[in-house]
Amino acid sequence: MANVYTLDRIRSVVDGLDLGPVIEAGFVAYTRGRVVVPPVGELIFEKPPGDTHIKYGYIQGDPSFVIKVASGFYDNPSLGLPSSSGLMLVFSQTTGMLDSILLDEGFLTDLRTALAGRIAAAYLAPARVDGIGVVGTGIQARMQVEHLKGVTPCRKVVAWGRDPGRLERYKHDMEGAGFQVRTTREIRAVGEACNLIVTATPASEPLLTADHIRPGTHITAMGSDTADKQELDVGILERADRVVADSRAQCRQRGEIHKALAAGAVSMDQVVELGQVIAGDVPGRTSDDQVTIADLTGVAVQDVQIATAVVQALSEEKGAWP
Amino acid sequence: MANVYTLDRIRSVVDGLDLGPVIEAGFVAYTRGRVVVPPVGELIFEKPPGDTHIKYGYIQGDPSFVIKVASGFYDNPSLGLPSSSGLMLVFSQTTGMLDSILLDEGFLTDLRTALAGRIAAAYLAPARVDGIGVVGTGIQARMQVEHLKGVTPCRKVVAWGRDPGRLERYKHDMEGAGFQVRTTREIRAVGEACNLIVTATPASEPLLTADHIRPGTHITAMGSDTADKQELDVGILERADRVVADSRAQCRQRGEIHKALAAGAVSMDQVVELGQVIAGDVPGRTSDDQVTIADLTGVAVQDVQIATAVVQALSEEKGAWP
Repeated sequence: MANVYTLDRIRSVVDGLDLGPVIEAGFVAYTRGRVVVPPVGELIFEKPPGDTHIKYGYIQGDPSFVIKVASGFYDNPSLGLPSSSGLMLVFSQTTGMLDSILLDEGFLTDLRTALAGRIAAAYLAPARVDGIGVVGTGIQARMQVEHLKGVTPCRKVVAWGRDPGRLERYKHDMEGAGFQVRTTREIRAVGEACNLIVTATPASEPLLTADHIRPGTHITAMGSDTADKQELDVGILERADRVVADSRAQCRQRGEIHKALAAGAVSMDQVVELGQVIAGDVPGRTSDDQVTIADLTGVAVQDVQIATAVVQALSEEKGAWP
Repeated sequence: MANVYTLDRIRSVVDGLDLGPVIEAGFVAYTRGRVVVPPVGELIFEKPPGDTHIKYGYIQGDPSFVIKVASGFYDNPSLGLPSSSGLMLVFSQTTGMLDSILLDEGFLTDLRTALAGRIAAAYLAPARVDGIGVVGTGIQARMQVEHLKGVTPCRKVVAWGRDPGRLERYKHDMEGAGFQVRTTREIRAVGEACNLIVTATPASEPLLTADHIRPGTHITAMGSDTADKQELDVGILERADRVVADSRAQCRQRGEIHKALAAGAVSMDQVVELGQVIAGDVPGRTSDDQVTIADLTGVAVQDVQIATAVVQALSEEKGAWP
């Protein structure tokens, strides 16, 4: 029978793993064409509203392939449940047999998403960050900012949200995590005070516009992962000096780049891939006054890499038990 | 935590369930547009050869949605492993949370596939079956024929295969199940002796041609489920009086109808859907000398229906325990 690992077991090994290089290697393998990633599977629900995504694929020559299911049901908090959930399945590339079930409840998706944000900032953020702006107050608004600790010494955060109660909780939690947090309901305040911005909402109308952004700003837009969601006005992408996609193929159909393409604000030949920047095949930021955008829609290779690494660690732990 | 059910537990409840009507209701709901079934997800492997399919969807208004993973790795028997494997995941349509994992190892896929064959034969086979022909000697070549017991009193089987050892085992096993089995390596012998034929191979070149088929024959072609696989020469579909797809949308892209469309041997307006025949919206067979074809590529609504019914039975069983 397949190994079934619960969230507690998964969390117990994750802290001991250096997953940043694992995710970076995944992006490079993807860019180099060594990864098979079919189009994302999707189910959309209306009453109550929710979406389920199936991301799956493999790195050629690896022992495993991975299928990941992640759901967002936005009314769940009113039932006392988290809005996001999910699991990952690890199979053998040699036999197709199920090896392990990671009942991570969406945790590994959250983590690999935050790690991608950290990687994007590491390659694209300005040398001197004077403020971290965050648009949104949910789980990624927290995890993305926490993971920036390894990228910049800046601990000043300006957080935008619509709900005063959620903003207050965000401030409380993130101050507990070592940040100085100013909250605002004026989106303009984020761009005025911050040159490293993370957008982490499920918005379907643009929140930030080009006149909100200072020269030298980097934006990681990670909230929009469907064809409908959008956080950045297309004018920001039009103005940007460097537009980076986690997957050029996927961003053609989802997220900010998709919207900007439809509006004619950018063309695909201006869009480079995060793996190209990591590998050094194309430069990231080349001057302090450039505006850079990373559009992260979430690529299955991230799931493949994190699931494989976690299962490896869990199986070694099991082997080490007396 | 989600309920995890192993194959033994699943088998223990399946015998007590009348799943035929459940699958029929699924086909009707599908035809009536009440089912959301996105395109099949697919991973193809070359060394060793294998394919993994992800089928998923839901019936509008049901409490659950289902994601099914099924793999076929054709070199597995040389490793002492079954070639097919898989699992089914049952989630809540209200919250997106994982409810149950059915570690059925492909059994429920095999079963719902055999049930679809039985349903197709019930609506399309000639009134008097004088021989059951089966092309192939694998698990579906067995299960499809066993499930025909409820459709016809005929117990004469002609089985075609390439491998004498496999043919011998097939004969032995199916005679144990109450059939009189003649084996052959001449495909022509199948059509000569039988007017109810099931094709159940992973062939990618046609095996049966139009001149092998007698008037009045029904063929259930269930082996071809990808764009490349093919068991019937397109001339058979051209000649047929009735061509029935389990899913018109899916058969446009996979299986026998896909091949016949590409060759110009049929057009989509000649193809009806199994759910239409079950519902009585279109007639099935209308005379004893018609040739009818059912092209079964496997539709996610079958997985949705069988998984939901099995989880329901398992949860009632659990509740009944002291």
